Amino acid sequence: MSAVLTVGVLGGMGPDATVDFMAKVLAATPAGSDQDHVHMLIDHNPHVPDRTRAILGKGGEAGAVLAQMAKQLQQAGADMIVMPCNTAHAFQPDIEAVLDVPFVSIIDETVAACAAFEAVGLLATKGCLASGIYDNALSAAGVRAVMPDDAETTAFMKLTASIKAGDSGPEVGTRMLQLANALVSRGAQAVIAGCTEIPLVLDQSMLDVPLVSSTDILAEATVAYALGQKDLNHKRQGSMA
Amino acid sequence: MSAVLTVGVLGGMGPDATVDFMAKVLAATPAGSDQDHVHMLIDHNPHVPDRTRAILGKGGEAGAVLAQMAKQLQQAGADMIVMPCNTAHAFQPDIEAVLDVPFVSIIDETVAACAAFEAVGLLATKGCLASGIYDNALSAAGVRAVMPDDAETTAFMKLTASIKAGDSGPEVGTRMLQLANALVSRGAQAVIAGCTEIPLVLDQSMLDVPLVSSTDILAEATVAYALGQKDLNHKRQGSMA
Repeated sequence: MSAVLTVGVLGGMGPDATVDFMAKVLAATPAGSDQDHVHMLIDHNPHVPDRTRAILGKGGEAGAVLAQMAKQLQQAGADMIVMPCNTAHAFQPDIEAVLDVPFVSIIDETVAACAAFEAVGLLATKGCLASGIYDNALSAAGVRAVMPDDAETTAFMKLTASIKAGDSGPEVGTRMLQLANALVSRGAQAVIAGCTEIPLVLDQSMLDVPLVSSTDILAEATVAYALGQKDLNHKRQGSMA
Repeated sequence: MSAVLTVGVLGGMGPDATVDFMAKVLAATPAGSDQDHVHMLIDHNPHVPDRTRAILGKGGEAGAVLAQMAKQLQQAGADMIVMPCNTAHAFQPDIEAVLDVPFVSIIDETVAACAAFEAVGLLATKGCLASGIYDNALSAAGVRAVMPDDAETTAFMKLTASIKAGDSGPEVGTRMLQLANALVSRGAQAVIAGCTEIPLVLDQSMLDVPLVSSTDILAEATVAYALGQKDLNHKRQGSMA
């Protein structure tokens, strides 16, 4: 089987999460040699302005930077674009505005994987929650979002800062699990790992309910679209068509 | 500390080795947040024609493909180029011919790390050995290369094929260790992991002599050059200077 599409990856948000995503793309690819793998062009740019700060109106031109990166990946030959950072999807309209190739949303793919549940917990950054991208999509899919409260979100931001600073140890994992279990205690039948730092410390074996890892779902969708196992046409932009 | 240079990475040879290299770049970077990390542009292209076949004259335009990839990375903003694949360095002249920015050689960096030894073992692909890139550089540095024989090289190629097909299990590691120890028994004071697949199955804890991992050495050099801790000027190309 040979890959059909070249995948552009808006990465570096965070760095470890991008490497984790790439490893999961490789693991999801049926390959017997190098040549069977998917061609990826990765802009691993850890200098994209802080997404949560930009969403909260505290400054930074994250949307413009991401749009420029996406345009350059398209010019370099990417046939589709993905971004293994949930929060940055608040800027999806800025990105899509400059693209003629499809952008595959981690939010849409993750929410589609939640259709069987009535209520799902949502672990995500303060900016991601403030943007409403996940609860709007869940609501449209008829799934109730069980949200963290302000104290839990503050605790979550501290944990992701620790992970981004290189601490993915068991103590951080235990605290992340407590946040997930709090959502379960309030009715969540599954928990969305709606931030690509989460799977670096939390895995399915630690939870009693399904962990819906946005990283894994985007990796699997990326391979399926790239190899033509899933149809991208319905996602294609119209501007140059 | 903020990164100074954007690093272009010729990757995908093999895919797991590139992800391993990226993870080692992140681990080698002194970082407290995303923004402290190095900006990398990665062309993760597993479809580069087989390097060993090209070196042995069996076909494939590996050099031309790598040169085109490198030029595009430079055009996209890369200030330096690295390639976490030893064998592909047989095409370094093709790559440097089209670049105006420095190319940091995994061979040169690895050989520089061997200066303290009189004799080092060399585990590398058939193409890498046939090209002579490692033993020429070792000879110039006054270090004797202890080379695998034909049967050992055939065995090595089977092991790297297994790794590229997704098998990095303990049995492959044990067989790789046997090849390393055969070089030690013939006088090697250290063993060069001169193929970026090797560290996926063999680590220092398994050997009684130093394992000189070309992946680790290139990752550390990449960070040092990107952050300005080591001077790249002596490597700068002259064509546009």
